[in-house]
Amino acid sequence: MTQRWRDLVTDKRRRQQESIPKEWFISVPPDTVLDVTAIPEQCGLFTAKELEITNTVDVGVLLNKLATAEWSAVEVTTAFYKRAIVAHQLVNCLTEIFVERALARAKELDEHLKATGKVVGPLHGLPISLKDQLCIKGLETTMGYASWIGKYADKNATLVDILYDCGAVPFVRTNIPQTLMWGETYNLVFGRTVNPANRSLSCGGSSGGEGALIHLKGSPLGVGSDIGGSIRIPALFNGLYSLRPSYGRVPYEGAVNSMVGQDSIPSVLGPLSNSLSGVKAFMQAVISQSPWTKDPLCVRKKWDDEAYALSEHGGGSTLCFAIMWNDGIVVPHPPIIRALEMTREALRAAGHKVIDWQPIKYLELGNAISAIWKAGAGEDFHVTTTETGEPVISTMNIVEGVEPDSSIRPAPTGISAYALWQVQKARAELRKEYLDHWQKTVEVTGTGRPVDAIISPGTPFVAPPHGRNNYTNYTKVLNALDYPAATFPVTRVDVSLDAKKPAHQFLSETDEAMYSWYEPTLVQNAPVALQLIGRTLEEEAVIAMTEVVDAALKAKAKVAL
Amino acid sequence: MTQRWRDLVTDKRRRQQESIPKEWFISVPPDTVLDVTAIPEQCGLFTAKELEITNTVDVGVLLNKLATAEWSAVEVTTAFYKRAIVAHQLVNCLTEIFVERALARAKELDEHLKATGKVVGPLHGLPISLKDQLCIKGLETTMGYASWIGKYADKNATLVDILYDCGAVPFVRTNIPQTLMWGETYNLVFGRTVNPANRSLSCGGSSGGEGALIHLKGSPLGVGSDIGGSIRIPALFNGLYSLRPSYGRVPYEGAVNSMVGQDSIPSVLGPLSNSLSGVKAFMQAVISQSPWTKDPLCVRKKWDDEAYALSEHGGGSTLCFAIMWNDGIVVPHPPIIRALEMTREALRAAGHKVIDWQPIKYLELGNAISAIWKAGAGEDFHVTTTETGEPVISTMNIVEGVEPDSSIRPAPTGISAYALWQVQKARAELRKEYLDHWQKTVEVTGTGRPVDAIISPGTPFVAPPHGRNNYTNYTKVLNALDYPAATFPVTRVDVSLDAKKPAHQFLSETDEAMYSWYEPTLVQNAPVALQLIGRTLEEEAVIAMTEVVDAALKAKAKVAL
Repeated sequence: MTQRWRDLVTDKRRRQQESIPKEWFISVPPDTVLDVTAIPEQCGLFTAKELEITNTVDVGVLLNKLATAEWSAVEVTTAFYKRAIVAHQLVNCLTEIFVERALARAKELDEHLKATGKVVGPLHGLPISLKDQLCIKGLETTMGYASWIGKYADKNATLVDILYDCGAVPFVRTNIPQTLMWGETYNLVFGRTVNPANRSLSCGGSSGGEGALIHLKGSPLGVGSDIGGSIRIPALFNGLYSLRPSYGRVPYEGAVNSMVGQDSIPSVLGPLSNSLSGVKAFMQAVISQSPWTKDPLCVRKKWDDEAYALSEHGGGSTLCFAIMWNDGIVVPHPPIIRALEMTREALRAAGHKVIDWQPIKYLELGNAISAIWKAGAGEDFHVTTTETGEPVISTMNIVEGVEPDSSIRPAPTGISAYALWQVQKARAELRKEYLDHWQKTVEVTGTGRPVDAIISPGTPFVAPPHGRNNYTNYTKVLNALDYPAATFPVTRVDVSLDAKKPAHQFLSETDEAMYSWYEPTLVQNAPVALQLIGRTLEEEAVIAMTEVVDAALKAKAKVAL
Repeated sequence: MTQRWRDLVTDKRRRQQESIPKEWFISVPPDTVLDVTAIPEQCGLFTAKELEITNTVDVGVLLNKLATAEWSAVEVTTAFYKRAIVAHQLVNCLTEIFVERALARAKELDEHLKATGKVVGPLHGLPISLKDQLCIKGLETTMGYASWIGKYADKNATLVDILYDCGAVPFVRTNIPQTLMWGETYNLVFGRTVNPANRSLSCGGSSGGEGALIHLKGSPLGVGSDIGGSIRIPALFNGLYSLRPSYGRVPYEGAVNSMVGQDSIPSVLGPLSNSLSGVKAFMQAVISQSPWTKDPLCVRKKWDDEAYALSEHGGGSTLCFAIMWNDGIVVPHPPIIRALEMTREALRAAGHKVIDWQPIKYLELGNAISAIWKAGAGEDFHVTTTETGEPVISTMNIVEGVEPDSSIRPAPTGISAYALWQVQKARAELRKEYLDHWQKTVEVTGTGRPVDAIISPGTPFVAPPHGRNNYTNYTKVLNALDYPAATFPVTRVDVSLDAKKPAHQFLSETDEAMYSWYEPTLVQNAPVALQLIGRTLEEEAVIAMTEVVDAALKAKAKVAL
């Protein structure tokens, strides 16, 4: 039995290696080189134009150059594919590699544009990377399970079809942790993905391959999934923009997943990018295709330009943001606090109001979502791995003695359906309590509206050493509440600015544990990012308000220079 | 223990009797008088104006007369209250009776209108009856459980607050079956509600008190709930308009329920009325209050005038309806088939297309929804009744030897959360299959669109003798699919037109059992109604298309005269 899954893995790895064009191999620096972000530009593989293309982080600009045929889809796909392959060699971020298929698609798009003068759709020619859940007809979808090696998809996931309809070029699939229920990225088939800014640090998870790939500008736009933070954590650890949409805004149909049938906390798909224009372009394009006609779980709700114009937020001229300094359980590390302070000052300088957010029931909400997962997760993982006998991974550590996050590890046996209903009932009551709490802020904002958006840490730390991403409450509570949340980069760890502070009055044992390991030198160079939180099905407004925050931060940075 | 719940029931019944103004008691005809629909007009209790008011079935007209102060809210409330009390004496349809509170509210509204010249909201002065789940502060909510006698609400259900905000006058609460999981209406606290057209027949359930009350024009508009047909079945058996909205369109927050925490098949609240204008007024008013700011499970989706104008259905001029003649399991009785034929002819006469609908997977969908309920229902009912030891009712029969609908009776013990997830997974796959099946009809409609709406039986029979409503698949499959469905009356049973047909090739054992008991004389005078089905979150279009069908039927009837 043991031999069986090992053999499958060996074969799969060999096939993956063979799928890489030989001329795209580079000389990879040794593991002791931690920051590999400059390697793509230094390795000599790229033409000046390929660097120009892949360094164009603004997806709006890319789409414009593609639509006007200034850059061809083949050129753009080739450039990003090469950079993705280089990224893979540096941080091990890819799973499925299918160069020919992607280039053939790009060629088709170029021909269509040439023949008709028209783009195929709003994402014409844009290479898009996909988490290893999004099935593409004829390709394997292993999701990091040895047991799923050889499982070839007989059709595209609905979102993949929609991306094709929009003119996109799906071009790589990206690495994930086994089961997807980890905030880091490691599995027995493809191994571990690491952080490009510092390879001793985690790239986050579960959409960790996406995070690391986009960090290295190996993809302009990627699709991840999020059931407890799996889009946002890699985005935060890699300094990216991303969006965790509400349930049912982006079609999940036809994607593989773990814990399928768990209806209470649906996983959602969403974008990661180096630009907010990428996040917006993705959401607007996907929703424009009426995904509810293809996925019965999609909400029939058009892209709402009025909501994007912040019609329910006073037009956006004077917003009231609330900053959540901590969740009442774990105080964030110095770089995160500094980012919150920078954001507060930038927003005030831009004429917005900023007040403090009082979180409630984070512990209870976190416990509820964990209990719902654990209700059947153990059996799910067991059934999936039984076929080949591959072990269910129980830690993300590479060092001994650090415990995995028990909140996301399932009990070996689950609970009854009736017991699950009781947890779900408690969670519904918490959602009501939280909504009322938010609505009640109308009394203190002075805008006549409740708080427009919350600015919150997404994790209490920046990308931690491998195995140490053991606290996901800042993200998963929003999955329990079904609040959309966007991430945005703020700064980078600066050893001189982010010194360890004297011990505070600890809020919990976890707080003390998290405080203990922090040293700025340990996380040197790591990106620092935050999340902006809106209310359920407010995707348009969340994107627009994140633009406001991003502009404020950029304006402030300019003044500082 | 037995004595305890019996004592509670005796006391509650006494208190209910005492809540009825003595001057509103009438001389009730003996049980042998089956059709009591004419009694309100004959009993001598009402003034001519009270009859004029309560016979005004068009809620649009009522609202207009209230808004212009032609009729005061006190007059209208008094008239409907008296008629509700008469109805109650005839068919036992009420639970909570609170005349003073309702009249005080009506008086307030009259004073507001007089003082300001403005209505309080879009439902100004309209009496609204509420199923015995919708808590009103200070009143008991027993939901037919002896164990809940003495449970006084400390706040209103969110929907009740919203109705108050809209200017409505909640004025009675209505009877239900114990557990709500029956298509008939009987519980140990309030007893059985019967059908006004023929008291030997069922009024349906679980919103059966609403159905019977509105049938007797004792309320212009009522609110029921539907997890498997509980709005539609009483509407069908009483010849009413109604709407089962999609999940989350109408706020459920703060209403009591059974199986709370069961997230996969949410029960939904919706309107029943003698007019479609009542259905529309309710939905438009409730949604106009942004219920998502009060109920976290409500979909952030405004009332959509474009959708109501059938913008996605070619503007409504030439619609393509599909008639589902049977669900592949049970062939409907002759009156239902005749109603389908009448509807087909009326629609064709009105210039619309009508094709046949091919149902798929009704058995599998019905089994899936039943399995999800049963997963924990038995434990839920047990826990609720344990407090007083009241029995869990296991049949709705008043005659021996007829089995209850096993599909809605829970197994004594449930299944595991993981096993539940497997059922939920199967159900999600069926939803996808059904959506694709519907979308594919674009190939045969000739309109360039898939079928616009399905016209289907809601039950394979009209209101049956008590205990015989044992087949709910025609409604509950739509809960599994989350398709909105409106009911509309078509005709009444006519012994000369609805003769029993020769036995057909039975589709199933159930089919044979249902065929066997039919005799037109048994269901004499019963209303015959159907349902119109749209796609998830298409409430506006479903109402508009039901208006089209209703107008076509009325036009056809006029021609026939």
